[in-house]
Amino acid sequence: MENSEKPDNVNQPGKSLKTGALIHGGGIFQRAAAAGLEVEEIIDFSANINPLGLPPGVDKVLRESLAHLQHYPEIDGQSLRRAAAAKLGLEPSHLLVGNGSTALIYLLARVLRPRRAVLWSPTFSEYGRALELASCRVENLISWRDGVNLEIANLLGKSLKLRPDIVFICNPGNPTGALWSRTELETVIGELAAAGIVCVIDEAFIDFTGSDNSLVDRVVEFDNLLVLRSLTKIYALAGLRCGYLVGSRELVDHLAPFQEPWSLNYPALRAATAALEKNHDFLKDTVSFIRRERTRLTKEIAGTGYLTPYPAAANYILARLDGGYRGEDLRDHLFREARIMLRLCGDYVGLGNSYVRFAVRTAAENTRLVGALRQFGDNSAVVE
Amino acid sequence: MENSEKPDNVNQPGKSLKTGALIHGGGIFQRAAAAGLEVEEIIDFSANINPLGLPPGVDKVLRESLAHLQHYPEIDGQSLRRAAAAKLGLEPSHLLVGNGSTALIYLLARVLRPRRAVLWSPTFSEYGRALELASCRVENLISWRDGVNLEIANLLGKSLKLRPDIVFICNPGNPTGALWSRTELETVIGELAAAGIVCVIDEAFIDFTGSDNSLVDRVVEFDNLLVLRSLTKIYALAGLRCGYLVGSRELVDHLAPFQEPWSLNYPALRAATAALEKNHDFLKDTVSFIRRERTRLTKEIAGTGYLTPYPAAANYILARLDGGYRGEDLRDHLFREARIMLRLCGDYVGLGNSYVRFAVRTAAENTRLVGALRQFGDNSAVVE
Repeated sequence: MENSEKPDNVNQPGKSLKTGALIHGGGIFQRAAAAGLEVEEIIDFSANINPLGLPPGVDKVLRESLAHLQHYPEIDGQSLRRAAAAKLGLEPSHLLVGNGSTALIYLLARVLRPRRAVLWSPTFSEYGRALELASCRVENLISWRDGVNLEIANLLGKSLKLRPDIVFICNPGNPTGALWSRTELETVIGELAAAGIVCVIDEAFIDFTGSDNSLVDRVVEFDNLLVLRSLTKIYALAGLRCGYLVGSRELVDHLAPFQEPWSLNYPALRAATAALEKNHDFLKDTVSFIRRERTRLTKEIAGTGYLTPYPAAANYILARLDGGYRGEDLRDHLFREARIMLRLCGDYVGLGNSYVRFAVRTAAENTRLVGALRQFGDNSAVVE
Repeated sequence: MENSEKPDNVNQPGKSLKTGALIHGGGIFQRAAAAGLEVEEIIDFSANINPLGLPPGVDKVLRESLAHLQHYPEIDGQSLRRAAAAKLGLEPSHLLVGNGSTALIYLLARVLRPRRAVLWSPTFSEYGRALELASCRVENLISWRDGVNLEIANLLGKSLKLRPDIVFICNPGNPTGALWSRTELETVIGELAAAGIVCVIDEAFIDFTGSDNSLVDRVVEFDNLLVLRSLTKIYALAGLRCGYLVGSRELVDHLAPFQEPWSLNYPALRAATAALEKNHDFLKDTVSFIRRERTRLTKEIAGTGYLTPYPAAANYILARLDGGYRGEDLRDHLFREARIMLRLCGDYVGLGNSYVRFAVRTAAENTRLVGALRQFGDNSAVVE
């Protein structure tokens, strides 16, 4: 192939990748196989999935979908596109659906081909990986420290100074759990628009916050705005892969011709459409359940004496290990004693393995986590 | 974005696309909705799916998979990669799995970035679309005429003369149904290798032929060889999306770092793995059933007097409408009278709407098709 002769360094991944490629929470199937356990014996606190499970009625739709697998799914996922647009009160022409919102991150990176990107960090590692695979230079701008988002005017100024083509902001932050207000981000988007810079807001976890801070409706005004939404977390459909992107008509029109056919499979399309159409109370119940358990779990984590939990707006809590404890030791203890999986945060830019992230799970599972956390503190105290 | 200033014409699809983008068989859900019918009331002869349905045991695996949707699937589909490798007797390092073999066509086009491609045509339209989206110049070389593949030495010579970086050959041909022998293609691959040209053989339908013409084992010898395989047709899993690519270690190593995480969802991974592990008799039964019904259907199609069917090696039959009949009229008649969907072939390079393709379906469905075809001949004769 002519590829290797190309002057630009396109399509030569590997050593140049700075981001932690393919390190994520989850991986329960591999973990279970490695430990000789059933998946049901493990509690996964490393992936941030709705502990209430699938919305009512979706399981039935899924079972029915299995009778139609001999047919190709819709080539362009139009039914889901229309359902998501209707829910948001937008025209379908402002939306694209994808095989998980991660697939849409890769699509936009490769189609928009920014030369330089700024990521407000620490943040989800797939932005950096997708951008670097598209030969984009990635600048990580630390936007959070010790539990709080840094001052927005300062971050905006620094972002503009780096002269990027695109800026990625995760709201609420993952793994930080910190939430920017809608007003703050509107200022950022507007200033970036004036400078001709695309702004991507990833709202993968915003449904868990119960807040009105989503910016999806602003795609009508801001030509430079793309908002990513996930259906896998809030509707507990992580195994199915489905997400969508909301954007200005200009950006969506630019991206749409590059979508691949049959990206979403039939069960994913059916389940996601049903979840969007049937979930009013489910969303409210989720938000109040998460709020209650998050408050309790935060207090209990602080009560261990060796963990400092940070303020959390969504369904996960970032915490710092104090007193010289090692994240790897806590992870190993939790799995050995309670079959609990934990997310170490050493691969996030700006964090290290003394940072750990806990999902908020069911009351019983959270109680089991708390017990195992206390035990770790007691054991370690004895050893010292 | 800086994109529009780039000197190369990358990422500006639209008018330059010569191929019939997103025109395919299938689309039964949209067709049913448009006609106000249930999917079950329609027989889809436009998509080439195994009429025997899912292999035994796969439905159970699928139903069980629905209990685990709250977990992320394997990030890299390793279990399916291993199962497919084991079935072929190859190392997993020769394989990649994808969200349908079409996703792998897009991956290889965008990563290998050929400047010029030769497609042995008429053939599957997604090669051309994927290549043109990757800014590749596409040359269609007519390789089939009036029911037979053209002389291989001649095609090889013409292919080399065009000095491409990559050549795509579908075997058996889709929509032609014609099969190249393993020996013929080995010569082609060898000559292309000597000229530094990548050769892609798409074996999406080869399982239906019952032949020994697959080239998957030759990836060990030929550094320039990529073979595409589909699981959606032979195992009737079109709604799930799953396929794989077999290639030389060099090419697979080049492509692998560009794969996106969580490409295959959990039900697809489980079903495909189960299908590969459990289907020995199912494959044999499929081949003998298809052979018998294909023979009968070919004879009946010829017997209509206005259709010339071509020799078919797989589970579909290409036919030419004679006597001035229009493909659109036949399509409309079949749907109106028998709720049958037909594939018009006007979008294939080298064919026109007087060419139609029929899947081979169950005996009862084939009989219904034959009845409706006869009726069309009778009606049209009366009208004339």
